[in-house]
Parts: sequence; structure tokens; C-alpha cells
Amino acid sequence: MVNIAVLGYGTVGSGVVEVIRTNGKQINRRIGNELNIKYVLDLRDFPGDPVSDILVHDYTKIIDDPEVDIVVEVMGGIEPAYTFVKTALERGKCVVTSNKELVAKHGAEFLSMAKIRNINFLFEASVGGGIPIIRPINSSLTADIIEEITGILNGTTNYILSKMYFDGADYDEVLRDAQAKGYAERHPEADVEGFDACRKIAILSSLISGQQVDYEDIYTEGITEITSRDISYARKLGMQIKLLASSKRNDDSLSAIVAPFLLKQDHPLYGVNDVYNAIFVRGKFLGDAMFYGQGAGKYPTASAVVADVVDAAKHLHRNIMTMWEERKLNLVDSGSVCRRFFVRLEGNGQEQLADIKRCFGSVDFVDAGFQDELAFITPVMTEDTYREKAADMSGILHMIRVEEPR
Amino acid sequence: MVNIAVLGYGTVGSGVVEVIRTNGKQINRRIGNELNIKYVLDLRDFPGDPVSDILVHDYTKIIDDPEVDIVVEVMGGIEPAYTFVKTALERGKCVVTSNKELVAKHGAEFLSMAKIRNINFLFEASVGGGIPIIRPINSSLTADIIEEITGILNGTTNYILSKMYFDGADYDEVLRDAQAKGYAERHPEADVEGFDACRKIAILSSLISGQQVDYEDIYTEGITEITSRDISYARKLGMQIKLLASSKRNDDSLSAIVAPFLLKQDHPLYGVNDVYNAIFVRGKFLGDAMFYGQGAGKYPTASAVVADVVDAAKHLHRNIMTMWEERKLNLVDSGSVCRRFFVRLEGNGQEQLADIKRCFGSVDFVDAGFQDELAFITPVMTEDTYREKAADMSGILHMIRVEEPR
Repeated sequence: MVNIAVLGYGTVGSGVVEVIRTNGKQINRRIGNELNIKYVLDLRDFPGDPVSDILVHDYTKIIDDPEVDIVVEVMGGIEPAYTFVKTALERGKCVVTSNKELVAKHGAEFLSMAKIRNINFLFEASVGGGIPIIRPINSSLTADIIEEITGILNGTTNYILSKMYFDGADYDEVLRDAQAKGYAERHPEADVEGFDACRKIAILSSLISGQQVDYEDIYTEGITEITSRDISYARKLGMQIKLLASSKRNDDSLSAIVAPFLLKQDHPLYGVNDVYNAIFVRGKFLGDAMFYGQGAGKYPTASAVVADVVDAAKHLHRNIMTMWEERKLNLVDSGSVCRRFFVRLEGNGQEQLADIKRCFGSVDFVDAGFQDELAFITPVMTEDTYREKAADMSGILHMIRVEEPR
Repeated sequence: MVNIAVLGYGTVGSGVVEVIRTNGKQINRRIGNELNIKYVLDLRDFPGDPVSDILVHDYTKIIDDPEVDIVVEVMGGIEPAYTFVKTALERGKCVVTSNKELVAKHGAEFLSMAKIRNINFLFEASVGGGIPIIRPINSSLTADIIEEITGILNGTTNYILSKMYFDGADYDEVLRDAQAKGYAERHPEADVEGFDACRKIAILSSLISGQQVDYEDIYTEGITEITSRDISYARKLGMQIKLLASSKRNDDSLSAIVAPFLLKQDHPLYGVNDVYNAIFVRGKFLGDAMFYGQGAGKYPTASAVVADVVDAAKHLHRNIMTMWEERKLNLVDSGSVCRRFFVRLEGNGQEQLADIKRCFGSVDFVDAGFQDELAFITPVMTEDTYREKAADMSGILHMIRVEEPR
């Protein structure tokens, strides 16, 4: 028998219990052993719930039980998750987690602890929910050099941007609708400011570089400034605005960013709408690949957690992961990255036209029928150059980066 | 040192050698050991080629060398590949292959041989080229019940259908162009008749059912009958015609088919064009996921082969695969599957209209501006019912199945 303890009986935790109980027969066949949920840890009581018999409030009960082989951490947040996971690994228990914040911050440390003890720390569900991406990167794509990984990694913001694009609605209105439907939190900052996507691209960047990428180092911009006018221009350009989290190889380093981008129709991520997530990967030999699916939600996330539990149970005393050292990777200075910029400028007179020509030279104007402003796409330049030139102009309403056809 | 022998120095074989030599440092780091190509087997000589030093013409030299740990079979075809792979496994050597025909026919046998000997038989590159799909099915998705797997699994036919759709060209013309560009073989039957896609969906069906699915049992229809008129109707319907290879769960069995289908724009496979492949997976808990990438080509395929080599090298004496028994799965009778059918009928008179009403009841007519025929989509019915009714009519020009919005 393989005994597991589930820390946290919230959305994901209850999903994990349900998936294991529903698919138990098949799971046991795959493992070649019987999987048993011995404990569920939560501060709350759940009277009448089938887990009430195995519910505990005290983590020491789990950590002191030598029969517990695998600890499943689905509480979220840094503490007490960090202490719980660390203690579990110290006691030789495998850990499976869906906690992106914890993985982004302490993944390298936990992986190294697991390696020394010949056990496993697995975190497939921390990026892309149900989409298998960590394991493909770690195994299928290991023989290759990953040159780019760019994802739509947050379902809430993708839902909001899709609604704005297809229904022509305003940001605030769509956000309220998303909150009513449960697609957005009451305090949506982690999603709409790009923090969630930033944690996830930090994890993926660490995996493809093999070194620690600190999420604090990644330039991050959310979608709160996107207006229905921006969307009108995007539609006029035959493009969509997507919140991209992207990491591109640059010699021995990576350049990483989270920001809204204008995407052309031929980009593989163009058609990824609503709450779906997708991750585009370019390998030196593999070429282009994409992984698409439900990036969040109770059951997709739970199914990824349980897949890790199965893997952990099959490799109880054999380390199967992973190239991610604690040594920090210094990212490429974001100011040196080249691209084009879509810019909207207040006013529509000779003065503005002259200003644009003076600062940006020859630009591509975009007319979406608004009389009180000018919009254009700059030539290719570095972020630093753009910032310099933009500082020299007055009346810039908004700037959105353009993701070039690759 | 881990020694490998590469059987076949054709497109994929030379790609494998190149990927290993180019990424050797990284590969060795991943394996934690030095990977060495000890032999390349080919009947031909390659004077001046870097492999000429290690080239052998006689397989016994490889099989009798106890230092060879992994045999990489990239010759294709059933014989002598079957004998070579079988002998290698008997001698305790791991085998990696990209040979879909061999895997579809003998995968279960080889997996069972490998399991008994605690070694591995790996075949990621046999389906979807560089797209990681076998390993995700085998690990990431194991905790779930896969309810559907539907793919665009053949790049040649997808290229032809995309060209017909976007350029409005005729089948024969596009085929010639594809042959000239090297996207289609001089004898293109295996691709255009659907045989290649059929082998691949047989492999995927075996993996998601855990039993042997014989490709001879899968109803298979190619794209040779698709005309530019069919494409005009598809465009009119806002749909695309794609060669789908599909397997859907039906209680304890599967229904499987390879045929051209009309797909709506909201289907995840709708936007997969040119030589790209994609595989749509629906899991009971996972929900919908899709894997997209280059399904063929020297380097994408080679990178998948090398990923398997890395995995085999990391698990030299430990079996990591797979649920696929030799016991045969009896597929659901294809005649009992329900769907709608797009039909084109010769003539455009009262007689035809009456005939349609008599046979199919109330249908949805489609007008693409052709005066000499009628086209319509039937209500939902079984394949058997459709065949019965169609036999009762005269002048049916063509029928294409409709893949319903899921």
C-alpha cells in the first residue's frame, strides 16, 4: 500500500480526493500497488463529508507517521506550505504540489533536497493546470535546446481579453461578469496584474535554463490598462491582444517578460480563447510545438496532481527529476530587447504628426475611426530606445508591444 | 558510458546522429553518463561521412556486442526491423524506435518482452513526430480516463487539404506540388489513403485502452476523393475539411475511424494547417487538451527519438512503460456510430428534392453556387442507417462526415 496525505481540502484538494476515489482501480493498476488516502489536513471540519474520518487538523500527525509515503500540498501560499513541504522532504516523504508561488520561490531548494534523499518533488499542476508541460519539458524535450517558451498562462485574463475582443465590452464590465461567474477572484490583482503568469513563466524559465530564475526579475505588466479602443485597433489590425508570459534564449541567458502583446493570426497562440491556456515551445531541433488545455479549474488541476502522485508512487525511492540548480540566472536586461510598439497618441493635428516623425521616423499608422487620437506601430527598436523616445513626446495614451511573426 | 547502435542511416537516422553530436554535452548532463554512438548500421557506404568509422553492414556485430545498451531502430518497415528489435530485446538491450508500422503491429509483444526483462521499449517518435504525446499519455494523463483522442496525424494530407482550402487548387495539382516540394512521396498511397494515420491512431487507441487495437479493424478512408467543389462547400459552411484519425470511448470499448471530416471553427483542430500535426485529447477530469507540432521531418522526429534514448539511458535496467496488453480489443462496430453527413447529389430538380425528403427527411441545404447539383447535411443517424438510405438514392456524388461541436 502507498499512503498519501492531502494538505488542504479546498477546491483542488477535494478534486484530488474525488479523482483518486473515482479512478482508483485504474490508478492502482498503473502503480502496481494500492493507493490509499490516509489523511486530509484542513483547519476546518467537514461534517458528513466522506473525508471526515481521515480529517486531521494537526500536521505533526502526518509528518510523524512513517507510513505516509507522499505528501500532496494543495493549500497554496508560502507559509505554512513551505515549512510543511520542507519537513516532509526532510523526513524522506515525496511531495507533490500545485503551488506555483512555492515552486517559483523554492523549487530549486526542494528539488535538491529530494535528489539527495533519492525521493521526488513533483509540480506538474503548478503551471498550466491540467496541461502536461513540466514533464514534457523534463523528459520529452530534454534532448533538445529550448529556444523559446511563450504561454498564455492565466485563464482569468484570457477570459477577460477574449470577452473584450468578441463582445466589444469594456474591461470593468467584463471583470465584473468574470467575477460573477467565478472566473475571477473578488481581489483579482494576482491575475489581472500578471503576477500569476509571472510565477509560472519563472518556473518554466528555470526549467529550460536549469538555473534559478527569480520572478522578481521578470518585467511584468497586467491587462488593467487595456481599453475597448485598444481592442478596436487590434481588430482593425487583424490581431488579438493576449497576455503573454515569454522567455527567449539569448546565448547563455534568457530574456523574460509578462505583458499584453498584439499577436497576428498566424501565431499559434492567436486562437487560444476564453479560460484556455496554451504554451508554445520552440526547440532547436523539435521546431515549434504547442500544448493547449484548461489551465485551471478543480478537475483539470486535480488530474495533474494525481498524475504526479502516480509518478511519485511508481518511483518511491528513485529520483526522476530535474535540472534546476539553485544558482541564480541573471536575465537579459529587458531594456535591450528589440521589438515593435503599438502606440496611441492624444490629438490628431500637424503637431502630433511632426512629433511622431521626429521621434520615431517612419511609422505604420492604424486608423480605427477615432478622430481624437493617432495610432501607429513603430519600427523595430529596443525597449530602452522606445522609452527614451516616448519620454520625449507628450500625450501618449497607451503602448502595447507587438509580438512579431516568428 | 552508455553505448547505442543506430539501425538505418536515412533521414531520421542521420538526424539522430546529428542531434546527439550537437547536443551531446547537455544530453550527457541529463543522463549523468556519457552517451556514445558505437555503431551505425546501413547497407550502404558513406565515404567521407563522419559515421564511416562506425558504420557496419552486419547486424550480428551489434547484437553480439555486450557493450551495446540501446538499439535505435529507424529503418522503417516490418522486416528486418521486427527481427532486429526482437533479437535486441531478447539479448537484454533497450530499444527505441520511430517505426509506426512495427509499433502498431508488434508494440504489445515488444512491451511485454521488455517488461519481463526489466528493460524498455520506447516509441515516442512513432506518432506525431516531435510532438510529445506517447509519454504524456503514459504518465501525465494516466490518472485519468481518456474519453477521446482525435488527431491530425499525417502532415502530407494536411498540407494538401490546407493548400486546397487556402489556394482553391485541385487535388491533383496540389499533390504534384507537394511531391515537388518533398512533402509527399512519389508513391503517396500510404499518406493519401489514410494508412499512415490509421497506424498511428491504432497505437494511440491501444495506449488509451491498454489492449491491442489492430489497425486492420479501423475503418479508413483517404482524401483522394476530395474535390475543389467539396472545399467550396466547406468554405461556405465556415468549416474546414481535415483528415481526422479518431478514437472515442464507448463503455469498455472504443470506436475508431480515419476519414475526412468537416470541422467547425470552434473545434481545436480547425486551425491546424500545412504540415503541422495536432492531437486533441479529452479526459474525464482533465477536460480538453491539445498537443500541436511538427509531425514529421528529420529533426523533429530525431529529437523525439533522442528524448527516448535519454529516457532509456536513465532507466537502463528499470522498466518504465506501459499499459498495452496483447489481448485484442474488439472495436465498436463502425456502422453503429451516430453523426451527421454532408452529401452532394447530382441534379437540381423536383425529383431530387423529393428523393432527399423521402430518404433523409428534413435536411440542411447548402448553396455554394453550383447549379448542377444539390448539397445538404443530414440529421444525426448511424453510419448503417446512412448507408441504407444512400443506397436507396441515385446520383450521390460524394459524402463527407461532419464532426459535431463537442
